[in-house]
Amino acid sequence: MTGVSRPPHGFPDSEFEARIARAQRIMRASEFDALLLTGPANIRYATGFETQFWESPTRPWFAVVPAEGKPVAVVPEIGAPEMARTWIDDVRSWPAPRPEDDGASLLAATLAQLPRRFGRVGAELGREMALRMPVAQFLELRDALPGLDIVDGAPCLWETRRVKTPAEVERIRFVCRIASEAYEGLSDLISVGEHLREVRRKLSMDILRRGADATPFLPVIAARGGVEQIVCGPRDKTLDPGDVLFIDTGSTYDGYFCDFDRNWAVGEIGDAARRANAAVWDATEAGIAAARPGATAREVWLAQAKVVEDAGSLGNNVGRMGHGLGLQLTEPPSNMPGDDTVLEPGVVLTIEPGMEFAPGKMIVHEENVAITGDGCELLTERAPREMWRIR
Amino acid sequence: MTGVSRPPHGFPDSEFEARIARAQRIMRASEFDALLLTGPANIRYATGFETQFWESPTRPWFAVVPAEGKPVAVVPEIGAPEMARTWIDDVRSWPAPRPEDDGASLLAATLAQLPRRFGRVGAELGREMALRMPVAQFLELRDALPGLDIVDGAPCLWETRRVKTPAEVERIRFVCRIASEAYEGLSDLISVGEHLREVRRKLSMDILRRGADATPFLPVIAARGGVEQIVCGPRDKTLDPGDVLFIDTGSTYDGYFCDFDRNWAVGEIGDAARRANAAVWDATEAGIAAARPGATAREVWLAQAKVVEDAGSLGNNVGRMGHGLGLQLTEPPSNMPGDDTVLEPGVVLTIEPGMEFAPGKMIVHEENVAITGDGCELLTERAPREMWRIR
Repeated sequence: MTGVSRPPHGFPDSEFEARIARAQRIMRASEFDALLLTGPANIRYATGFETQFWESPTRPWFAVVPAEGKPVAVVPEIGAPEMARTWIDDVRSWPAPRPEDDGASLLAATLAQLPRRFGRVGAELGREMALRMPVAQFLELRDALPGLDIVDGAPCLWETRRVKTPAEVERIRFVCRIASEAYEGLSDLISVGEHLREVRRKLSMDILRRGADATPFLPVIAARGGVEQIVCGPRDKTLDPGDVLFIDTGSTYDGYFCDFDRNWAVGEIGDAARRANAAVWDATEAGIAAARPGATAREVWLAQAKVVEDAGSLGNNVGRMGHGLGLQLTEPPSNMPGDDTVLEPGVVLTIEPGMEFAPGKMIVHEENVAITGDGCELLTERAPREMWRIR
Repeated sequence: MTGVSRPPHGFPDSEFEARIARAQRIMRASEFDALLLTGPANIRYATGFETQFWESPTRPWFAVVPAEGKPVAVVPEIGAPEMARTWIDDVRSWPAPRPEDDGASLLAATLAQLPRRFGRVGAELGREMALRMPVAQFLELRDALPGLDIVDGAPCLWETRRVKTPAEVERIRFVCRIASEAYEGLSDLISVGEHLREVRRKLSMDILRRGADATPFLPVIAARGGVEQIVCGPRDKTLDPGDVLFIDTGSTYDGYFCDFDRNWAVGEIGDAARRANAAVWDATEAGIAAARPGATAREVWLAQAKVVEDAGSLGNNVGRMGHGLGLQLTEPPSNMPGDDTVLEPGVVLTIEPGMEFAPGKMIVHEENVAITGDGCELLTERAPREMWRIR
């Protein structure tokens, strides 16, 4: 893995201090006395707390970021010992499950004790966020706190998380390299006739073997000459001559995602697919060139869109040409019309042009970049302009 | 894999017809004109739609189960081609992302067109559920539908999903066998001094190799004489003589989870840990014996609790002694005081006693069972009464 060494798992306290200082600056501008966090990515971002137990919907978990000082955790007893190992000091817990009051009264008491300046708390209510607690319980909580408005904190949270620290970028870079090398090695592991589920199993094991922690997202899709969609699969199908094999992956290291795809020609694909593939590769180049500080997400879209439109694109069902990524597979901004987010150093983006070149046949490419002081760093090993071949 | 063959991926239409007929019976009793679904497990249960793209929080997805007839899907364009391949006929989509109206108006129109008998729609608002859409958007939707109350549908959904069909049990049985055999083989793959992250990597790859689709949950935890918690890990630590190694897994096949753990003695562990381990094993036996039709979840708890209390348990931070499982790692009911759910054939449960036998030192066991006509079927390969050894 030339030049990219494996970062440790976990961050020093100074990392969290810097994150929370940034959050608190943005909170002040948003007139929030606190942020209320319930989701895995936001809680991990603020506290460093890591668990795969989010798979269990039984118990809600909370972290409260006050206007000053460290976050306060309000968590079920099952998680309290590990939360106590993070950088935060104040860990409150209740015996859970307790359906009649699963943390609600403890959380309400915690919020009620906050110093009040604005009388507003930001929560995960808006764009690209979901509250990880029962809505019924949230509505009761909201009514139980007179004088404290719980309002949408999503813009504040996304603004905080949008600019990655060097330590965050280091982890994304590392997992991008792992996945790049696994993609490059795949054609040695599989051949024509292989079942798509076997392709997925082999690649998934190889990504783990190379040092990723997990591979939550690994669609494996193949269809004659191009795919009709890029997010569901594998289905029960074998790799047949003439297929385009499309694979995307969100693999993780220390909580951070890569998100990029590759395409393989299974035997001989048609001229139309090859031409579309070259156009989409060129669009990716244009997107990478456009990804620089001061540019907007819309401009990164436009650079890509021009190339595929000139190549005769019929559109595509992805709806944008790249997006942020980090602790989640996709994060704001969106490279698309209407998103005027200005890029700045530390923003990590996918560059993801696609085109439907014939009805029901798409080619989609994707690379990951980090915005730097004067352009961007390509975090992935650039795909070749011609598809890799499976024989 | 003696006597347990690999089921196909996916279900015939008749499976979904039976599920929806059951849901609609319970909906009528709940006085619902429809169920509104947003979460991965509920949408998959009703439609068969499968994707790992739930990792992306950008776009909401919806399914509406009417009082009669098939569910209606309201999904972003990126998912429409695959949703059209499921058993349902009516797939509506919008170009997404579209932050100013990400499906909201299309969903509102869909709900407004429903035949109204009760004026009530059940949604994922309550127990052990979270709404997978921005709450702000949900509150607007609720206000935009005069004459239609959106109320808590969680009890109706959990009652529907609680009793598994034979085809669902078949999948849980299969993934339980895979994980059972992987656990049994682990001591040949690792040895004293192994890093916990390597233990996790090797076991994770082995579970995939044996035919699981994914392993979203695989905590690997080790501590001298017993563990202080069972849901977070691995941390940076090696397997040291005297440690108890605790591993749990929620691996999946065709969307269905197993959820059971094992313990290993690393070299020689103390007498107290060995005695606690035997007591917890005996408690598991008692729990399995108590898991039969007509018994309540509380009674299954009580049978286990008596054994560990007699053995001097100081309690434990898990808060219950088993729970339902299926499309999610944990589902209702909870084996604990206050849960008087009556077990019936088709309910799948974990039997999960634990005891803290010294401050900060727990032993927790877990097996999975399916309730049958006259008792239960053990889906996992029963753990030995003495811990496996790692040398």
